[in-house]
Amino acid sequence: MRFIGLDPGLQRTGWGVIEAVGSRLSHVANGTVVSDPKDELSARLRQIFEGVMAVIERYRPQAAAVEETFVNKNPVSTLKLGQVRGVVLLAPALSGLSVGEYAPNHIKKSVVGAGHAEKAQIHHMVKILLPAVEITGADAADALAVAICHAHHAASNRAYARAAIAAGAS
Amino acid sequence: MRFIGLDPGLQRTGWGVIEAVGSRLSHVANGTVVSDPKDELSARLRQIFEGVMAVIERYRPQAAAVEETFVNKNPVSTLKLGQVRGVVLLAPALSGLSVGEYAPNHIKKSVVGAGHAEKAQIHHMVKILLPAVEITGADAADALAVAICHAHHAASNRAYARAAIAAGAS
Repeated sequence: MRFIGLDPGLQRTGWGVIEAVGSRLSHVANGTVVSDPKDELSARLRQIFEGVMAVIERYRPQAAAVEETFVNKNPVSTLKLGQVRGVVLLAPALSGLSVGEYAPNHIKKSVVGAGHAEKAQIHHMVKILLPAVEITGADAADALAVAICHAHHAASNRAYARAAIAAGAS
Repeated sequence: MRFIGLDPGLQRTGWGVIEAVGSRLSHVANGTVVSDPKDELSARLRQIFEGVMAVIERYRPQAAAVEETFVNKNPVSTLKLGQVRGVVLLAPALSGLSVGEYAPNHIKKSVVGAGHAEKAQIHHMVKILLPAVEITGADAADALAVAICHAHHAASNRAYARAAIAAGAS
């Protein structure tokens, strides 16, 4: 099963695609979609949206996930991030994918094993969990972490479903 | 020239299309796009986006405008509104339209003549400025007000350009 993780930002939106066979993960691709700060907001949202759509069309993930946004103290920043987050959530939804949302601490716990891990620890664990990955930037690394978290969840949900079926059959 | 005004909301997004011939405005259509509160966020954003896209494809406006968002004291509401605003701005941008943004007071001033007008006054003036309009709801009325504001601006920009050309030619 293929997962895409997305880390929305108006300047730079990170993305990472991974594959899970059972509990074994492997890296497919990662990168960053950028928008031109000289353009008006709606044009920048279009650039981010089309970039994410192109990644989805190219790598055809079957599930998507986005980090739950840290609600900033600065409402102007929150609004700005909300706008780009909207178009980043829309892209997989238009492709028929359901989009998981995970709190930052939940992602850290899933990747590093601790809810208060530092960025550097997360990036380090992403490299260990995805052998041969070449991380192209900080936003792409964050996106890979979201994808890993979503894959872990899907795996435990499947295990839970199997256990429930086994329990029902016994 | 045809203008679409949009009033983003996750529950209900209002839209209004008007036509301007010189300074004379006329009503084309107005309505509301809704999303299903039972669906996950990304699916709701898709419903709003596809609804707005359908309106744009049907009425083919040449310019679009959205109200600048009142930044809410509640950051969770601000984030939510930001997300729907993102997809509402994206729809006209994907159709190649530039999207104007106007502050609420600016819209009131343009429609009523006063920056602190009440909702009821705005809706009253929308009816006067657009003879024969049948307003389908409060969000649609707000969207028509944004469209009127944008049309007024376009008209004064054209007048300004003409005056500048005349001044240059004299």
